[in-house]
Amino acid sequence: MPRIVALCGGVGGAKLAYGFARVLPPDDLTVIVNTGDDFEHFGLRICPDVDTVMYTLSDRDNRDTGWGRAAETWAVMDEVGRLGGETWFKLGDKDLALHLLRRQLLDGGARLSEVTRQLAARLGVQSAVLPMSDEPVRTIVETAEGDLAFQDYFVRRRCEPQVTGFRFEGATQARPSPEVEAALSDPGLHGIVICPSNPYVSVGPILAIDGIRKRLERASVPIIAVSPIVAGRAIKGPAAKMMAELSGPVSALLVARLYGKLIDAMVLDEQDHALLGERCDDDPRLFLAPTVMRTSDDRIALARDCLRLLEELR
Amino acid sequence: MPRIVALCGGVGGAKLAYGFARVLPPDDLTVIVNTGDDFEHFGLRICPDVDTVMYTLSDRDNRDTGWGRAAETWAVMDEVGRLGGETWFKLGDKDLALHLLRRQLLDGGARLSEVTRQLAARLGVQSAVLPMSDEPVRTIVETAEGDLAFQDYFVRRRCEPQVTGFRFEGATQARPSPEVEAALSDPGLHGIVICPSNPYVSVGPILAIDGIRKRLERASVPIIAVSPIVAGRAIKGPAAKMMAELSGPVSALLVARLYGKLIDAMVLDEQDHALLGERCDDDPRLFLAPTVMRTSDDRIALARDCLRLLEELR
Repeated sequence: MPRIVALCGGVGGAKLAYGFARVLPPDDLTVIVNTGDDFEHFGLRICPDVDTVMYTLSDRDNRDTGWGRAAETWAVMDEVGRLGGETWFKLGDKDLALHLLRRQLLDGGARLSEVTRQLAARLGVQSAVLPMSDEPVRTIVETAEGDLAFQDYFVRRRCEPQVTGFRFEGATQARPSPEVEAALSDPGLHGIVICPSNPYVSVGPILAIDGIRKRLERASVPIIAVSPIVAGRAIKGPAAKMMAELSGPVSALLVARLYGKLIDAMVLDEQDHALLGERCDDDPRLFLAPTVMRTSDDRIALARDCLRLLEELR
Repeated sequence: MPRIVALCGGVGGAKLAYGFARVLPPDDLTVIVNTGDDFEHFGLRICPDVDTVMYTLSDRDNRDTGWGRAAETWAVMDEVGRLGGETWFKLGDKDLALHLLRRQLLDGGARLSEVTRQLAARLGVQSAVLPMSDEPVRTIVETAEGDLAFQDYFVRRRCEPQVTGFRFEGATQARPSPEVEAALSDPGLHGIVICPSNPYVSVGPILAIDGIRKRLERASVPIIAVSPIVAGRAIKGPAAKMMAELSGPVSALLVARLYGKLIDAMVLDEQDHALLGERCDDDPRLFLAPTVMRTSDDRIALARDCLRLLEELR
């Protein structure tokens, strides 16, 4: 089977990772996940993207809300609210259980990658889910109202402030984890897929780590990306709004341009077929596929399309 | 009104504190609480006795179980268990909310006394609830099976190992908090009551702090204690078992002897009237009252009896 690495952030990327996990044996899929959104809250280490991936791969994700766990309850947060505490970041009861276990494992001295491996195993996730680094990288959203920590921008301010840029604190010093290095230098690797995650704040932090970007630039296997922008809009999240504020017209082509020479091909949604006519010479090769993943079958079909494209490019 | 200080541990002591809180204006009651049972679990600071006192004074205590909160739910712990985590220490959802707030306030740099003041205020507790010290003191139970951290002995091992002694790590270095010092040196103070808490592991750690013990030894106001041993048995908890293992016959007189010259009088339960006949010269003065607190009225009645005794002793 083709062994692949998927790079992703939260929801959209996790859906494609789910598709891969359904069509590849566990050993043949490694998901490298953004940790730029991670933060400390109530003394707990919250890893929103890693958790979304783990919940999605273990069929525990909440497909109604698009975040958090299915069949979640809110007893703790309700009481935090009654006691006058902060409730802007919603931590469900089941979700909190995972955060308590993570805190305990981290306090025991384990690296985040090792902690994640243990948590994933407890959730029954069989593919490798790797935080991009064991060292902290923190996404700062530069806005017209000043710098905001990612969760302040994303949750507390509901992505309202106008974005002027991003920076990824700690990315310069952060090294990829040994597990990430091993996955990217695996001689059995067939290809790398950048999932349809926000290119700025989900994939951006991963690529901001020198040790990862250099490995991708030197990769001997094809690298493809799936656009999170479909028909000029983001399926979910602030990618389109950020793009409009930073670059003007919102388009899947702009995503391709953001990844530039790093990728060998880009998968666009079939709704964007008109864009193929606008291809410029400096754009990577563009391919069409149904990329909107409403059902599990959609996820699996897109995963198969990506695997086919990787084989074609080899 | 008479201004008093009550020293206590968890359940039994908290009941009498509740009685005082119902008969004294908030400014006239200060409760100094054992923190020797405190520990870190899942990265949270758990303060069992302080929380029991706060829950009891705010009418949130669970009178069925004798610990934790009323109308508690267990969504987080249930999930921790499903994920293979430790569930030997039961943290209810509402209880966890308080621990999250405490963690956040401590991480913000506030002293435990200040944090407790804020949490008590949020719970609507009006009397002052003071941790005995802002510095860590940890009760170690010395047993035939080796040293055990208090919660390991008390919860995990269900008080089964035979006790050979106690020590209070950190007590030598720990200073009473400024709030405790102020309460004990308040010129308006009328008396000090050692509540019917375990003399070894609830009151013991408080008295092990030099700055508190010396203030009690020099106190110009009467100090009385209420026996937690009634008719040779502890109302709740391991006090009687500890006493049997350490000293032989279990008796309220032995509690009086443990406190020795520190106290001016001891309140025994009416069931122990026979003990009055055995009084030795080196025992403090003994008084009888109904000390078994089943109802709120029982708590209030015992509080009034204590206040009357303190007035007599002045």
